[in-house]
Amino acid sequence: MKIITVSREFGSGGRELGKRLADVLGFDYYDREIITEIAQNCGLNETYVEQELSHFAWHTIPLTFKHSFSAYFALQNVHTGLLLEQRKVIEKIAETGRDCIIVGRNADVILRDKNPLNIFVCADAASKLQRCRERASHDEHLTDKQMARKIRAIDKNRSKLRELITDAKWGDRQNYHLIVNTTGWNIKQLTFAVAEYATRWFERG
Amino acid sequence: MKIITVSREFGSGGRELGKRLADVLGFDYYDREIITEIAQNCGLNETYVEQELSHFAWHTIPLTFKHSFSAYFALQNVHTGLLLEQRKVIEKIAETGRDCIIVGRNADVILRDKNPLNIFVCADAASKLQRCRERASHDEHLTDKQMARKIRAIDKNRSKLRELITDAKWGDRQNYHLIVNTTGWNIKQLTFAVAEYATRWFERG
Repeated sequence: MKIITVSREFGSGGRELGKRLADVLGFDYYDREIITEIAQNCGLNETYVEQELSHFAWHTIPLTFKHSFSAYFALQNVHTGLLLEQRKVIEKIAETGRDCIIVGRNADVILRDKNPLNIFVCADAASKLQRCRERASHDEHLTDKQMARKIRAIDKNRSKLRELITDAKWGDRQNYHLIVNTTGWNIKQLTFAVAEYATRWFERG
Repeated sequence: MKIITVSREFGSGGRELGKRLADVLGFDYYDREIITEIAQNCGLNETYVEQELSHFAWHTIPLTFKHSFSAYFALQNVHTGLLLEQRKVIEKIAETGRDCIIVGRNADVILRDKNPLNIFVCADAASKLQRCRERASHDEHLTDKQMARKIRAIDKNRSKLRELITDAKWGDRQNYHLIVNTTGWNIKQLTFAVAEYATRWFERG
């Protein structure tokens, strides 16, 4: 069984790379599907689950800004509960025994024992800004500066979320097998380069 | 003209990867050759040139530990002079117009305008230790702990040397096109994976 995990900076094209890689290699693909599954298992709204799981910062606001201790702990428990459910869903994917690609969600840490190929995808600030501009019509009102700040904030969240489950730092070269910078690449072309690399990685002696 | 620069952690196998990559791709290869050229141009001993260029730390020792001001500045000037000569030699390599691979020496920064493919090579601590053990008979007397400390010290030097000419941090994912972790790879096999990636990189639209 071959597992590839794709971690990525927001706006780097990592998700597109993961999806295309799954198509080229004939692997199952998981990204949003994980959120859908968690929502179903917990009987919660998908958007709510997604928000809870991608925003760490909210829970770090000092207690005094919250309504009450009980609300604070209730929310903390929801968050922890969802993280546990997410882990279960990801472990279940690995149990199918089918080759797969999982984008985000710290699957590289959760599936460590399954020897996944862990890829991190990054890009320079200008490319990420451009990709976000092309994609997100609901962010049209943001200035470039605001958009750049949003990108950094999302990545900071991802980094913090990772700290909840591991000391292995998000985006640090020691924690991945391959770090790909998408700057200057067409993701479609890049996919073939990474697919070849991945194929050789799984075949290595 | 295609240029590949290879920066690497000490003991990661980056040099071997660079050499093999040059063989597979049919590129010229530069590493020690640069030192030889500098030594010839400056009329200095090769070993001395190499030591001067790879040990930044010596010159950061506070003045009070040195014999005199004049000795301090004389040595600083030698160091700066050698760095300038190194830059010239690397620029001359690029002027030949021949496809080449340059290992180390911050060639990625020096040749920035030539659009090189910049690769960084890393590995986990255990693999680096093992590779150093297999290679360096003159370090046989070192304990594992001492050897690990030596590896870290050399990388710290490389990082510091880089700071002399750029703000772009050594080993930071933003400053390379590809970061390859050699842990678990046979470098010979890895070479083909990286060669394919490089070929596609130079062909990208």
